[in-house]
Amino acid sequence: MKMKKPLQPIDNLRCKIDAIDTQIASLLQQRAQHVNEIGKYKSHTNITIYNPIREFFQLNKLLDGNVGLLSNKNVLGIFRQIISLSYNLEGGMKLGFIETPTTQNSTLMEIGCRKQFGLNAPHLYRYENYKKLFHTIVNQEVDYAVVAMSDASEWSPLLIKHKLHIHSSFVTEHLEALTEFMVISQKPLDDDNLNKTCVIISCKQPSTLANLERTLLEMRDKLPQEINILPLTKNNQKFLLTINNNSSDKNIVAFLNDLQNTFCVDYMVSYMAANIAY
Amino acid sequence: MKMKKPLQPIDNLRCKIDAIDTQIASLLQQRAQHVNEIGKYKSHTNITIYNPIREFFQLNKLLDGNVGLLSNKNVLGIFRQIISLSYNLEGGMKLGFIETPTTQNSTLMEIGCRKQFGLNAPHLYRYENYKKLFHTIVNQEVDYAVVAMSDASEWSPLLIKHKLHIHSSFVTEHLEALTEFMVISQKPLDDDNLNKTCVIISCKQPSTLANLERTLLEMRDKLPQEINILPLTKNNQKFLLTINNNSSDKNIVAFLNDLQNTFCVDYMVSYMAANIAY
Repeated sequence: MKMKKPLQPIDNLRCKIDAIDTQIASLLQQRAQHVNEIGKYKSHTNITIYNPIREFFQLNKLLDGNVGLLSNKNVLGIFRQIISLSYNLEGGMKLGFIETPTTQNSTLMEIGCRKQFGLNAPHLYRYENYKKLFHTIVNQEVDYAVVAMSDASEWSPLLIKHKLHIHSSFVTEHLEALTEFMVISQKPLDDDNLNKTCVIISCKQPSTLANLERTLLEMRDKLPQEINILPLTKNNQKFLLTINNNSSDKNIVAFLNDLQNTFCVDYMVSYMAANIAY
Repeated sequence: MKMKKPLQPIDNLRCKIDAIDTQIASLLQQRAQHVNEIGKYKSHTNITIYNPIREFFQLNKLLDGNVGLLSNKNVLGIFRQIISLSYNLEGGMKLGFIETPTTQNSTLMEIGCRKQFGLNAPHLYRYENYKKLFHTIVNQEVDYAVVAMSDASEWSPLLIKHKLHIHSSFVTEHLEALTEFMVISQKPLDDDNLNKTCVIISCKQPSTLANLERTLLEMRDKLPQEINILPLTKNNQKFLLTINNNSSDKNIVAFLNDLQNTFCVDYMVSYMAANIAY
């Protein structure tokens, strides 16, 4: 006859955890039913499944109320995976990204996609290069392209050429480095709540880098907050700027006017930047 | 003045989802407190943080009670991430795996580790090859090595040489293929609940593959269930067998006796195989 092990002090704690897990599992199933209803409604009204604006406010509300041992990143990590289940319940969506010959970059791209769109995101499509990836966006073979901000010099000409739209951006922490991604679609996304604007400018005439930087620095005085400047070409003729405002925001009108008077504005679109890096 | 958008039919559903999310977030924080208590207890008693046996029964209970739109895989995916937060709350653990020159293999290794041990698993260490990885296990620089079953011919000689222990196995679904991983440690894991046994055998004298297979097939009659046979060497002298029983299980005693009489048994250890692939 086998002896039963005596109860350990942690068994009581484990019972409490099991009870919590049962409640969470039941809440997840209730949630799925509501999501399923939303999916039915969306399919009748042509509302898109991916809604970065709704997600932003939904997650912000949770993070604002977050008190306890779990950090905002911890909570965000779990809820991104919970939300990702919704994409499939509402009918699924196709995401494309590029697979590079560099091991670390490819892993980074895939980890980024899966952190944001679900560990089990079943509809991930891999392409050799940005040209092929953007081609599938134009042909609507995939719904969204996920691109690395650090590759902007490669994909920004295609973004302008095909008049594509940035829907959202998010930042992934991987190997102790932060990587910013953008989510691109053929369809426009127009809303007053979009919290960031991307502007691509070209210099009207050749200039030195010092001159350019001085001009931009002077304009920054007209901005209530930081602007991020990314050179797109080696000769410093094209730049990608990101500003923490909607392009219709009255706080940046003066700045955008100055930009248009000084440079060629090749591209300008507002999008939704995700809450925090994780 | 800005007009407020009229309420949409989905707003009511979204309110319900938000209420559920608030409850889940609160339950996650309560759970974290209990986990923290367990962590304190474990640190005083030297009980290991990673407990594949407890996880197996914890998750099985949830999956047994799972009814609704979310599949077992969906629920498992969320709970694996919830459990992974516990590892850090209890003090953290170090995991090693290999990074290969092949893009797809490396991504696969990393996705496997992150699905099982957490998207944000902060203590992942990458090594060039299995020799270096197993060296860190022997020196206790990392707590566990996560290895791909398909690479068993590479790492099994090191497993035998250093007398290491398999603690668990899990199966990851990636790019529509299933990959089995094993989690290896320097410490033994002894429990009646372990549900699988790994045996590595060598032929006493050279034999043909056909003979070997016939011998093993005959022995399989003594097993109540399937046995998996993986050749480890090109000359078919070494094999890795996995059996769905604990080595102390009376159902496999006859089979293990036959094995020991017919072959050299180089290695035998029981471990915990995870519930389902995801």
